[in-house]
Amino acid sequence: LRISQLDPTSVSRGEYRHYMQKEIFEQPMALGRTLQGRLPLDDAPLALGEKTMSLLANARAIRILACGTSYHAGLTAAYWFESLCRLPCRVEVASEFRYRDSYPMPNELVIAISQSGETADTLAAVHDARERGFDGVLAICNVDESSLARAADAVLLTRAGPEIGVASTKAFTTQLAALALTVLALAEREGVRSDMRQALLRLPTQVEEILAMDSAIEELAAAFADKHHALFLGRGVHYPIALEGALKLKEISYIHAEGYPAGELKHGPLALVNEEMPVVAVAPNDSLLEKLRSNLEEVRARGGQLFVFGEDGAVDHGGGMRFHSMPACHPFISPILYVLPLQMLSYHVAVLKGTDVDRPRNLAKSVTVE
Amino acid sequence: LRISQLDPTSVSRGEYRHYMQKEIFEQPMALGRTLQGRLPLDDAPLALGEKTMSLLANARAIRILACGTSYHAGLTAAYWFESLCRLPCRVEVASEFRYRDSYPMPNELVIAISQSGETADTLAAVHDARERGFDGVLAICNVDESSLARAADAVLLTRAGPEIGVASTKAFTTQLAALALTVLALAEREGVRSDMRQALLRLPTQVEEILAMDSAIEELAAAFADKHHALFLGRGVHYPIALEGALKLKEISYIHAEGYPAGELKHGPLALVNEEMPVVAVAPNDSLLEKLRSNLEEVRARGGQLFVFGEDGAVDHGGGMRFHSMPACHPFISPILYVLPLQMLSYHVAVLKGTDVDRPRNLAKSVTVE
Repeated sequence: LRISQLDPTSVSRGEYRHYMQKEIFEQPMALGRTLQGRLPLDDAPLALGEKTMSLLANARAIRILACGTSYHAGLTAAYWFESLCRLPCRVEVASEFRYRDSYPMPNELVIAISQSGETADTLAAVHDARERGFDGVLAICNVDESSLARAADAVLLTRAGPEIGVASTKAFTTQLAALALTVLALAEREGVRSDMRQALLRLPTQVEEILAMDSAIEELAAAFADKHHALFLGRGVHYPIALEGALKLKEISYIHAEGYPAGELKHGPLALVNEEMPVVAVAPNDSLLEKLRSNLEEVRARGGQLFVFGEDGAVDHGGGMRFHSMPACHPFISPILYVLPLQMLSYHVAVLKGTDVDRPRNLAKSVTVE
Repeated sequence: LRISQLDPTSVSRGEYRHYMQKEIFEQPMALGRTLQGRLPLDDAPLALGEKTMSLLANARAIRILACGTSYHAGLTAAYWFESLCRLPCRVEVASEFRYRDSYPMPNELVIAISQSGETADTLAAVHDARERGFDGVLAICNVDESSLARAADAVLLTRAGPEIGVASTKAFTTQLAALALTVLALAEREGVRSDMRQALLRLPTQVEEILAMDSAIEELAAAFADKHHALFLGRGVHYPIALEGALKLKEISYIHAEGYPAGELKHGPLALVNEEMPVVAVAPNDSLLEKLRSNLEEVRARGGQLFVFGEDGAVDHGGGMRFHSMPACHPFISPILYVLPLQMLSYHVAVLKGTDVDRPRNLAKSVTVE
């Protein structure tokens, strides 16, 4: 028997109308806690715990296992591991990994991600991975007394605090922050990366800046409330962010939203685009912006209604496009920032539609059965 | 200058109303051509050409690069390579692979798939893969004078004949058959697999058997013609088949259909399910059937309309489910068979909706620009 450590004041809605809204606005604080004590202000090594550091040091490849929103956090991290750490990284839906054959590469580390640490498929996938000879398991989760925490060789807690809303928000961004810490630890094998450290340290402040866009995004939501479909586009590390934006809208607004890597538009989904299908794009100022711009022009040319989040000057506004300006940021943390307006958007659309925001139909907070 | 080898009689619609319909019904013949001369009736080695066999023999890992429907063929083959050949295999959307960092594993072979052999992103991805040190390129394509055929170290032609309909059908199944031949060649390194050979040899006949379901599926189509959404579910090697079924419906019926691995239902999309959202499931008689059944019960319990393709006795029919019986088949070729009813379904729905079946809006047959 263990006494729950839950602080009752941390699970009151307080001034907020819904837990989801509260949890969106808790993100600066939650992210601050995720980083606290782990990311030194000077050039000292990252403090992720001895076991975590040793698992990471031995890894020559990474397999991420997760479901739902946690799977999207894993997909994002895979871009980081491959581009910033030169480590091959594969991400698999836990329920798929379990039931197919696959073999570890030499020194392939498993990273298992679950907010509750009780997701049945993820737990079973970790068990299977051990049987298949994977080299150690690092858990990224939010509950230190969880089954996943106990099953792993090391745990990096996200410290998001209790998440009550079924649609995950602060759990997702703190998962990304925890994963970013492991990426940074690996990227620093050849020397301190001050720019990445600074970017992560600025994260909570930049998140606050973006949350201040809330009322502008509330206005935007009106354009979605009477729609039945939406496409979310991103490229590269922002493709999983598009997937997550679409999942949020599905979960609580019951709008059939789908995420796509923008380069695949022409291979099918463009046929769906008309004035009834809003298209949301995350267009950060990176090397893919030029390519994304031409994808957006295709949508505009077909009469699609575009909603674009990017830095000033990212795209040529004008007819058929609503542009929301995002602050300049370091590319490392950009996916963590660009998911925020998508969370707020889905929240406000759900409120307009009058759905049960915190307890959407058919879904449970933690999927503890297969 | 080259003179086109196109036989004009092979591009007439003949008795068919649309090229797509003609191409669906050409599949037994096209698949016969894909296998002809390559799969001996006795225990002799497969005859895929010396260069192809030597590329395969050297491979210790496989990276598949493709777009759209060809990407779904690649996803299917990845399950085969990993479970039947014990080779690690990753599949990447070509437009994503190009713009991110990734590094080959030792002796990692590229398999590039494109019907036309002119898909701009796939061609560019092959070029990038060579620069990144991948170990050889095998092209799976339908046009032997194509840019991809010239850029590759070896080509395995699908021999589907000219495909005119924008929505790919016979190109997809012949890509799967060509990939199945490479899988068989690798799986046979430790001895002839007679059961797999027999299954492939029976493929054209079994395809004919399933095409005879056409009028039953035409009736089914009426249930979709007034719908705006659909979910397609599969597990394991049939998950990419669900994706392909959804893509077909998107492309020519303009119905927003989305494919999901069935185990992910509870992590979000279940919120969308109601009587307006038909759910199509491919439920072959494999080790995953029991798991799939419980996913289908979740859909039924939420009032979702189910359309299930499986062998007799696969699921407990009854209220809220329409079941279509498929012939028994060897699990190796099952994905090639289960995509056929989904092709026919999307065709008949498009005809009912009166869309321009062979030339859907906004799409081109070959995407020769980025």
